[in-house]
Amino acid sequence: MVDLVIVGSIALDNIKTPFGYVENVPGGSATHASIAASFFARPGIVGVVGEDFNHFDVFHSKNISIEGLKVVKGKTFRWSGYYEYDMNQAHTLETQLNVFENFKPELPDSYKNARYVFLANIDPELQLSVLEQMKNPLVVIDTMNYWIENRREQLLDVIKKSNILLLNDAEARELFNTTNLISAGKKILKLGLDAVVIKKGEHGVLLFTDNEMFLLPGYPLENVRDPTGAGDSFAGAFTGYLSKNSLNEEYIRKAVVYGSSVASFNMEDFSFNNLKKIKLQDIELRYNEFKNIIRF
Amino acid sequence: MVDLVIVGSIALDNIKTPFGYVENVPGGSATHASIAASFFARPGIVGVVGEDFNHFDVFHSKNISIEGLKVVKGKTFRWSGYYEYDMNQAHTLETQLNVFENFKPELPDSYKNARYVFLANIDPELQLSVLEQMKNPLVVIDTMNYWIENRREQLLDVIKKSNILLLNDAEARELFNTTNLISAGKKILKLGLDAVVIKKGEHGVLLFTDNEMFLLPGYPLENVRDPTGAGDSFAGAFTGYLSKNSLNEEYIRKAVVYGSSVASFNMEDFSFNNLKKIKLQDIELRYNEFKNIIRF
Repeated sequence: MVDLVIVGSIALDNIKTPFGYVENVPGGSATHASIAASFFARPGIVGVVGEDFNHFDVFHSKNISIEGLKVVKGKTFRWSGYYEYDMNQAHTLETQLNVFENFKPELPDSYKNARYVFLANIDPELQLSVLEQMKNPLVVIDTMNYWIENRREQLLDVIKKSNILLLNDAEARELFNTTNLISAGKKILKLGLDAVVIKKGEHGVLLFTDNEMFLLPGYPLENVRDPTGAGDSFAGAFTGYLSKNSLNEEYIRKAVVYGSSVASFNMEDFSFNNLKKIKLQDIELRYNEFKNIIRF
Repeated sequence: MVDLVIVGSIALDNIKTPFGYVENVPGGSATHASIAASFFARPGIVGVVGEDFNHFDVFHSKNISIEGLKVVKGKTFRWSGYYEYDMNQAHTLETQLNVFENFKPELPDSYKNARYVFLANIDPELQLSVLEQMKNPLVVIDTMNYWIENRREQLLDVIKKSNILLLNDAEARELFNTTNLISAGKKILKLGLDAVVIKKGEHGVLLFTDNEMFLLPGYPLENVRDPTGAGDSFAGAFTGYLSKNSLNEEYIRKAVVYGSSVASFNMEDFSFNNLKKIKLQDIELRYNEFKNIIRF
């Protein structure tokens, strides 16, 4: 039995930042999100890898179910990219879809009753097919500019079936062609969501719920080594925490702070190296640091 | 007797934003800062205008001393500029220094014992000459990229004699050629300041003091009509509030929130139109809204 289902990519990444270069390191949205979620609840991954993927140990050690993870003939999805000193912006050098090109999410029976599902950034039609396989879960959904531009109607369809939408500031502005982020958040909320979370990278997070707004600044990191997976770590921890609590304003705010805490740890080293080392206790410490940093 | 001295420009502005166009409206750093400060304490302006300036009524109505404001033959300093939808960035069309070109700050005796001085963005040599005329005041200083690039040594000199430095994120990065804002803030603090305030526009404010960091998100404004003077309104309210309180971490944090509250009101209309209308009670309401917005 899993608490939340996470559907997304599992990748092998080549990443260059001003602080180093790594090759063939495990990445992808489902990888980062499930490891982040595992501090709070038991996630189950739905995804696909090729025969060249040999990083199952971390999933086992974090008690993440990989019953929904298929290994097929061929090569794992690969992403190569780099960051300059402004690490808010990832620059893609190459994307090889490989086995991900024909990915059709299929949920094992043991996943179908999970309370939550996190739909990471994939084709909205695949996101929809996941919902159709589940029995009325609470839905957290992520997306990206590509789908906003090329699959707008299908995307709006899935969003309307979701409870919480996560997106970054540029995507929020793009969705309804609104320059002001506050207006954008309010418009998006009217699609029928319980909450909209707008991620602003180092500038923090805006949360919109029915009558309230919550603003959390970014955790002040002096050493960001690799921002890859920060958004997915946020989403994983956010959904993982919520899957064990009630869905209301109070817990959604706390989930934003836990999400930001875990994402900040993830950025302090390449791949998920840092999340392999830390414990829930470290996350609690950072959560409390947040309290102190914003206190007045 | 004044509580704080404010030295800077008094201007007539032409401003175009996506929400309107105004001509010959009163502006300038000393104008915005003194009106913002007047909610908390009695400011005295040091500056110069030409014979074409006829906006003294607002200073009188706000009980701002203009004993240090000279009226000389010629035209008032003029700035013309515009903003596009990204209102974080002002675009200058024309600057006419006019009578401001030969501005030499001279403090009336009644200003020399003021507890605080706010040195708005002017030539560091003029800022220094103000300090030399005062009896050991607490000093809040602002600057801009032009002085960092062209008067670096003189600027560092005045900063070292100051208590609190206000600057925006780009200026903070530029001062010590540091990309990371947290590192920048810590380095700047080591110049011997009590506090460094880095302003990030809509993304809020970072405060650095000896052992602590304080982060406040920007007030979520849906309707920004004119950002001109936001930084100076922040500085004025910040310094005005501090001039009536102890200089310690607790009050500096509160001063940042009051500064942000007043700046947000200023942005909701052109020139100081909105600050003429609101009362201290409105500012207190927004201060409390901030508490609610960041609560978790």
